[in-house]
Amino acid sequence: MTPIVSVFAASPDRGRGLARDMAVRWALAEVGQPHALRPLSFAELKTQEHKTRQPFGQIPTYETDSLTLFESGAIVLHIAETHGLLPTDPAGRARTIAWMFSAASTLEPVIVEREVAVLLEGDKQWTAERLPLLEARLRQRLDDLAAWLLGRDWLEGDFSAGDIMMVCVLRRPAAALLMGDYPVLAAYVARAEARPAFRTAHADQLARFEASSG
Amino acid sequence: MTPIVSVFAASPDRGRGLARDMAVRWALAEVGQPHALRPLSFAELKTQEHKTRQPFGQIPTYETDSLTLFESGAIVLHIAETHGLLPTDPAGRARTIAWMFSAASTLEPVIVEREVAVLLEGDKQWTAERLPLLEARLRQRLDDLAAWLLGRDWLEGDFSAGDIMMVCVLRRPAAALLMGDYPVLAAYVARAEARPAFRTAHADQLARFEASSG
Repeated sequence: MTPIVSVFAASPDRGRGLARDMAVRWALAEVGQPHALRPLSFAELKTQEHKTRQPFGQIPTYETDSLTLFESGAIVLHIAETHGLLPTDPAGRARTIAWMFSAASTLEPVIVEREVAVLLEGDKQWTAERLPLLEARLRQRLDDLAAWLLGRDWLEGDFSAGDIMMVCVLRRPAAALLMGDYPVLAAYVARAEARPAFRTAHADQLARFEASSG
Repeated sequence: MTPIVSVFAASPDRGRGLARDMAVRWALAEVGQPHALRPLSFAELKTQEHKTRQPFGQIPTYETDSLTLFESGAIVLHIAETHGLLPTDPAGRARTIAWMFSAASTLEPVIVEREVAVLLEGDKQWTAERLPLLEARLRQRLDDLAAWLLGRDWLEGDFSAGDIMMVCVLRRPAAALLMGDYPVLAAYVARAEARPAFRTAHADQLARFEASSG
């Protein structure tokens, strides 16, 4: 069957491809696998029905006849393993998975923390004073990532599932704002965004937003 | 060769098994694979030499003749794949990996954020007012996890690499403090801590701390 990917019915990013389903849809586009969508409202995300698919009431999920899967990292890895978006040598494969975990658990949290400070605590008197602290923590990670990528096109040899996860994280607003200071990272993101599969997935998100808000 | 795991030369947790090498050493104990240690000072973590092993200057890393690996999730997954700490059916395997990503990127960030608020911002006047906000975000995740684990011994069928990652995250102080309100999660952690491999890894961490602080 065509896999079904759950997405926001009305994405808060207005179709810019910043929601976490972007990594999944980009991976599917890279391997040429069509998919269907299950758009969910914020209220539907928190229902028991959706929590049987995704225990934390989030998007994306990925459903086939034989599998219901959650966590964008795990879904992208599953697609990559099934369709060859991973190196075939064992060491390259393991290191690509390391970069997927890095994107999800070393980079994304400091980026999301910076976003949460504005989105959830923007009205608090402490936020202006906290932002430089958060930005310093984020820059530490970006410094290290830029040092790694210096002289490399992709994280580990050829383009892989690790790059999909990392580029999606770097495209989030709190990181995107700093790309002017990181030409190595900006060039890396631009290389990824020039891929036909990225452009397909991105255009699909925008079309979906325009259709849903029409 | 015996794999080498990098660890803190002087762990800030005083050997309680809260550092991120615990998941790796527990997984190695589960599969009966001996390992050697590479203790690193905080200064050594930030050297170029260590950053060739771990681009973000963290522990743990995992080294064999043919592979240098980083990110505890990726290392535990590699050990699990090599030695059978994953379900053998494809759907169970994929879902176990989903729980590993959940632990690392859905649970751990809200737990670490609560810890960082005290460790790095404890002297700020805003921290007392922020803590209830952070705790509410953390409790949302714990509520969902407890709902999933109700009536289950482990996250997905038998004990697996997903449980190793999740239990290590729940043992962190900011989550451990709340376990009194979550009997389902407390029982889950206790079940895991009763495993001989957990006890071996935990005793090893304590012995290492006592030897290094001797």
